[in-house]
Amino acid sequence: MISDDDLKQFFTFLNFPSVSSEPDHKQDVENCFNWLNQEIQKIGFKTERWETEGHPVLFAESKKIPNKPTLLIYNHYDVQPVDPLELWESPPFQATLKDGVVYARGAQDNKGQLFYTFLALKELKEFPINIKWIIEGEEEMGSEGLETLLPKYKEKLKSDYTAIVDCGIPDADTPAVSLGMRGIMTMELELTGTDVDLHSGTHGGIAYNPLRALTEILGNVRDKNGKITIPGFYDSIIPLTDEEKKDISFEFDEKKYEKDFGVKATGGEKDLKPLERNWLRPTFEINGLWGGYQGEGFKTVIPSKAHAKISCRLVKGQDPAKMSALLKDYFEKVVPPGISIKIKTPHGGGPAILSSPHSKIVQAFAKSFSTVFNKPCRYILEGASIPIVSALGKASDSEAVLVGVGLITDKIHAPNEHFSVDRLYKGKEVIKQAIKNLV
Amino acid sequence: MISDDDLKQFFTFLNFPSVSSEPDHKQDVENCFNWLNQEIQKIGFKTERWETEGHPVLFAESKKIPNKPTLLIYNHYDVQPVDPLELWESPPFQATLKDGVVYARGAQDNKGQLFYTFLALKELKEFPINIKWIIEGEEEMGSEGLETLLPKYKEKLKSDYTAIVDCGIPDADTPAVSLGMRGIMTMELELTGTDVDLHSGTHGGIAYNPLRALTEILGNVRDKNGKITIPGFYDSIIPLTDEEKKDISFEFDEKKYEKDFGVKATGGEKDLKPLERNWLRPTFEINGLWGGYQGEGFKTVIPSKAHAKISCRLVKGQDPAKMSALLKDYFEKVVPPGISIKIKTPHGGGPAILSSPHSKIVQAFAKSFSTVFNKPCRYILEGASIPIVSALGKASDSEAVLVGVGLITDKIHAPNEHFSVDRLYKGKEVIKQAIKNLV
Repeated sequence: MISDDDLKQFFTFLNFPSVSSEPDHKQDVENCFNWLNQEIQKIGFKTERWETEGHPVLFAESKKIPNKPTLLIYNHYDVQPVDPLELWESPPFQATLKDGVVYARGAQDNKGQLFYTFLALKELKEFPINIKWIIEGEEEMGSEGLETLLPKYKEKLKSDYTAIVDCGIPDADTPAVSLGMRGIMTMELELTGTDVDLHSGTHGGIAYNPLRALTEILGNVRDKNGKITIPGFYDSIIPLTDEEKKDISFEFDEKKYEKDFGVKATGGEKDLKPLERNWLRPTFEINGLWGGYQGEGFKTVIPSKAHAKISCRLVKGQDPAKMSALLKDYFEKVVPPGISIKIKTPHGGGPAILSSPHSKIVQAFAKSFSTVFNKPCRYILEGASIPIVSALGKASDSEAVLVGVGLITDKIHAPNEHFSVDRLYKGKEVIKQAIKNLV
Repeated sequence: MISDDDLKQFFTFLNFPSVSSEPDHKQDVENCFNWLNQEIQKIGFKTERWETEGHPVLFAESKKIPNKPTLLIYNHYDVQPVDPLELWESPPFQATLKDGVVYARGAQDNKGQLFYTFLALKELKEFPINIKWIIEGEEEMGSEGLETLLPKYKEKLKSDYTAIVDCGIPDADTPAVSLGMRGIMTMELELTGTDVDLHSGTHGGIAYNPLRALTEILGNVRDKNGKITIPGFYDSIIPLTDEEKKDISFEFDEKKYEKDFGVKATGGEKDLKPLERNWLRPTFEINGLWGGYQGEGFKTVIPSKAHAKISCRLVKGQDPAKMSALLKDYFEKVVPPGISIKIKTPHGGGPAILSSPHSKIVQAFAKSFSTVFNKPCRYILEGASIPIVSALGKASDSEAVLVGVGLITDKIHAPNEHFSVDRLYKGKEVIKQAIKNLV
C-alpha cells in the first residue's frame, strides 16, 4: 500500500511550484530538482545533473549488472502554469487529500506518475536488470534543453528498452498500454494593423481591424465537416495499416464523456469516431487568442494588434518542422492587405511515435498491467504528445513504450488537477512487475 | 489668442482622470465635475447638478433674454480609458505642451472642444441669444444616465437649436460642418465549452474549442467583398437621396491616410469609397477578443471560454435595439453543437442622425467656419457616434448640428491623444461667430 510517510513525501514533491515556462518560478524549479536529486540518491541511485540553457535534467543509474538488459525510464518534474487560479478549490501548490484523491498541480502530470515510479524502485531495492532514469524539467515547454543534450549523452542513454511513464488508461479499472502518441508543433501569430489603437467610429469602414483578420484566418481553416483545409495539411500522413489497427481498442463512451466534461464530443472531423480523431488525426487548436479591450465596460477601438497561440497535434508521417513551415507559408499568404503578420515558432515540437504490440517491452508491461488489474490489457494510443519521446527512443537506440495510469478526468493542465492514492499504488505495482518481466 | 492663463486652466481640466467606464476613477470623475461646475459659475452661468445612477450631468444657463432664440450646446467631461499605458510618450493625465500641441487623454475628445466652448462663452460675456449648456459625464460609456433623465428635463432642455461640439474637420485648414453621424450598438459574447480548460492533446479532436467556435462565427460575418452576410443586417437602411448626397463632400486622401496611419484604407465594403463606407454604411467591429493562455511561453489548452466585445456603427434607418436583437438571434443560431453562448448588451446605443444643410443652425455655423478659416465651408458626415445626440435633439425639440475642430489624426481613444493650441483658438472663434449669427 501507500504509507503515510510515502504520501507526506509525495506532498513535499508536489508543493514545489516547478512551473517551467514561467521565468518567475526558475528558483522553484531548481529547488524541486535539488530535492528530487537527493531523494533519488537516498534509494541507491548514482545521479548526474545535466545542464541545459533552461532547467537541468536529472539522470540516475542503478548499480551496473553485467549481461542484463537495460531499461531507460522517462519522467518529468516540471508542471504546467496554474491559471485561472480562481477556479482551484484548493491551492495548486498545497497538495490536498480528499476522499482518497490528491489535488495539486502535477498530482498526475507528471509528478504523480514519477512518484509511483520512485516508490517502485525504492521498494524493489535490488534490480534484476539495469535501470537508467531520465527526468527532465522542461517537458511542459517543449523539452528543448533535453533534446539539445541527446547527441552528447547518446552513450549514457544507450538502453534495450525505454518506458515513458507519462500516459494513461481508458478508465480506472481498465489496464492498457499505449502503442503510440501524437506529435506536436506550436506557433504564435501577431497581426498588426496600425501602430496604435484607432477609434472604431472615425476609422470603422476605412481601416482593416486586425481582430477581424485574425478571426477570418483562423475561423476558416476548416470546412463544414471539420476537415482542415490548409493546403497540404494532411498530405504527409502515413495511415495505420489494418494490421496495425486491429490490435487497438477504439472503444469510447460518448455518454460518459458528456457526463464527465459537460459537453458532447463534437470537435474534429465529423465522419470519424472520437478516438480515431484523437489518436490518428492531426489537430489545429487555438490555445490562446487576444487583442483589443478586455476590461470592464466598453472601449470602441480598432486595436493595433491581434495575437494567437496555435498548436497542432501531429500523426505518423507529419514532420513538425515541415508542418510549421507549411502553416507559416499559409498564414503569410492569406493575411489581408492592410494587415501585417509576424510568426514565431518558439517551442520545440516532436513527431508522433508508434510501437509494435509484439515487442518485448510492450509485452512486459501488458503482462504486468493484466496482473495488477486482474483483467486483459488493452492496446490504445495517446492523443497527447511528449515531444521528446521520438528523439529519446532514437538516442537510446531502444524501442519505447508509453505507459502510466493517468485518466482523462484527472484535469491535467487544468484547475483542480488530481490523482487517486489507489492509482499511485497500482502504478507502483505495474512498474515493479514490468521490471521483473524484463529479465 | 489663447493666453498662458487659459492654457494653465485647460491643463488643470485635462489632469482630472475622469475615465467614466472605470469604477476606480469614480472620485476623479466627481472631482472633475465639481471643478468644471465652479469654473462655469464664475463666467456667469447658473448651473445645476443632475444626478444619474452613474456620473452627474452638468446643466448651465445664461441669464434669460426674452424674445431671443435659445441655443443648446452639448459637451462631455468624461474620457476614454488610457491603456495601453506603455505607449504614451507623456503621462495621459499630465497634460504636456510640445511645439504648440497639447498631449493628454481628452486633449481633443472632448475636454479640448469643451474648453474652447468655455473660452468662447467667457469672452462673449454678454450673449445676443439664450444659451443652455449640457455637459455629461458618461458619453464614453454610452450616455445611459443622461438618456434616462431626458424625459424629466424636457422643459429645461427646450431650445431652438442644438450644437453638438464633439466633431471634426477633414484637415487642419478645411472648415466643415457635419450634417450627420452614425449610430452605435454594442454587445459582449461569451462562448463556453467545458467548465474547465482541457488538455489539447487528450481532448484535441474530441472537444470543440470555444476559440475555434468564436473565430468561425466572427470570421464569417462577411463575404469576400467585405459585405456583412448576417441576414437582415442592411435591410432597414434608408439610403441618402441624391439630393441629400449632392451637398456632401466625400473627398478623401488615401495617400495621406496611409501616411498618417501606416496602412492602406482596406476595411469595409470593397465597392465603395472610404468615406461612403465610413459615413453611409454600418460596421461590424470586434473591439476586444480573448480566451485561453496569453502569458509567456505556451500552455496547450482547449480553453473553457472565449469572449468578444462587438460594436456596430449604424446608419439612417437602423434601430439599435432591433439590430441588437437581430445579431443576438444570429449568434445563438450559428453557435455550433458542444458550445453554449451568453450574450450581454450592457451599454446604451443610439441611432444615426442627419440634418438638412439648409437649416438655420447649420447655416450659422457654416458661415462662422468660413469666416474663421477664410475658406468655403464643406458639408461632411461623421463615422463616429454620440449615442445621445438623437435623443437630445428630440428632448430639446430642436434641430441639431454636429460641429467641432477635431482631426482624425488627433488619436482620440488611443495613446498620445493630442490637440493643437491653434485649433483651440479657431474653435473658440467659430463658437463666438456662430452665436452672433443666430440672432
